[in-house]
Amino acid sequence: MSLGHLYLVATPTPGQGEADFLTRVEAALQGGVDVLQLRCKDWEALPYLQLAERMGELARRYHVPLFVNDRPDVAFAAGADGVHLGQNDLPPVWSRAVAPGLLIGRSTHAPGQAEAALTDRPAYLAVGPVHATPTKPGRSAVGLSYVRWAAKHLPQPWYAIGGIDLSNVEAVLAAGARRIAVVRAILDAPDPARAAHEFRQCLRARQPEAC
Amino acid sequence: MSLGHLYLVATPTPGQGEADFLTRVEAALQGGVDVLQLRCKDWEALPYLQLAERMGELARRYHVPLFVNDRPDVAFAAGADGVHLGQNDLPPVWSRAVAPGLLIGRSTHAPGQAEAALTDRPAYLAVGPVHATPTKPGRSAVGLSYVRWAAKHLPQPWYAIGGIDLSNVEAVLAAGARRIAVVRAILDAPDPARAAHEFRQCLRARQPEAC
Repeated sequence: MSLGHLYLVATPTPGQGEADFLTRVEAALQGGVDVLQLRCKDWEALPYLQLAERMGELARRYHVPLFVNDRPDVAFAAGADGVHLGQNDLPPVWSRAVAPGLLIGRSTHAPGQAEAALTDRPAYLAVGPVHATPTKPGRSAVGLSYVRWAAKHLPQPWYAIGGIDLSNVEAVLAAGARRIAVVRAILDAPDPARAAHEFRQCLRARQPEAC
Repeated sequence: MSLGHLYLVATPTPGQGEADFLTRVEAALQGGVDVLQLRCKDWEALPYLQLAERMGELARRYHVPLFVNDRPDVAFAAGADGVHLGQNDLPPVWSRAVAPGLLIGRSTHAPGQAEAALTDRPAYLAVGPVHATPTKPGRSAVGLSYVRWAAKHLPQPWYAIGGIDLSNVEAVLAAGARRIAVVRAILDAPDPARAAHEFRQCLRARQPEAC
């Protein structure tokens, strides 16, 4: 499976109903999102699994891969394509042991982490956070210098992530990113389809052959 | 592996160092605890795994089984004997799929849940909470009536759990419990070894042949 260029990390907001959440995710898919991640920190596994199964139905309908954040067991049970693992999540070797066949995405925050992560043959790396973001309180931004390093050194797919929105995406692309991961700037937008479409246009302008 | 009668659910208190935590767990083992569970709600998987590995060393030294709460992937990676699953955790069928060979313990709060859980062939059931407890805020106590039902109907090992301490354990045993799970009344005691020993004596007085 080839990995898309506009990756949506989707988290229900507190109190948001499942139907509203899925409607907004589907709008984002219609607008041009081509990779999905479901990220429900501190959720119990059963509701996490149930929502991941619903997301999987959407992902299959739009022919995009679904990654589940943090829990290979939930990803496997939900029939997802992969699991996204942070630096403090289960090590990839154990994720593969309990959930064979899942693609693995990996968060990295510095070149040393990226080089270490490569030895685990991830499907992609996440490179960031480019900007400080309320999604990851307490994690300082790594800025565009790490994006430039990634553009120069990483052999396989990687996504710039962290506080990317329509006002700053051009600088991220100019630093060498060809794939971006977006959290709030799509799902929290008044019109997620339109926001996704605008990101897509920015990507296409840089790389018409791939997008 | 036969399941013991005095089950300790061990959770590090906020800010507690690992060495202090493990020292208190070991004291509880010396006092007579014969089943261990590590329960770290909302911990990231890597530190959870690392602490579970250390707990596993202790468990093996004292020849008692170790269960890991909530995460079959972490339990499997740590080489634990089993996983303890609540009603909102991963369903046992998926736990077995990702972590074959692990024993499964299951929380139940009513006879109907116990009967449903039996179809998954758990190694044991937890029956409670007998009393309200700060460990499970928002969950109302089921009282001794569910303990009496369990004593009459459950064919395999089960533990009474929830707010059991030395002041109320006699009533729990009188209601028919032969195995008890304790959280705070051992690890938060000034002397965990002595507290475990006193629980052990209560169990032995009721059932000299098993304890």
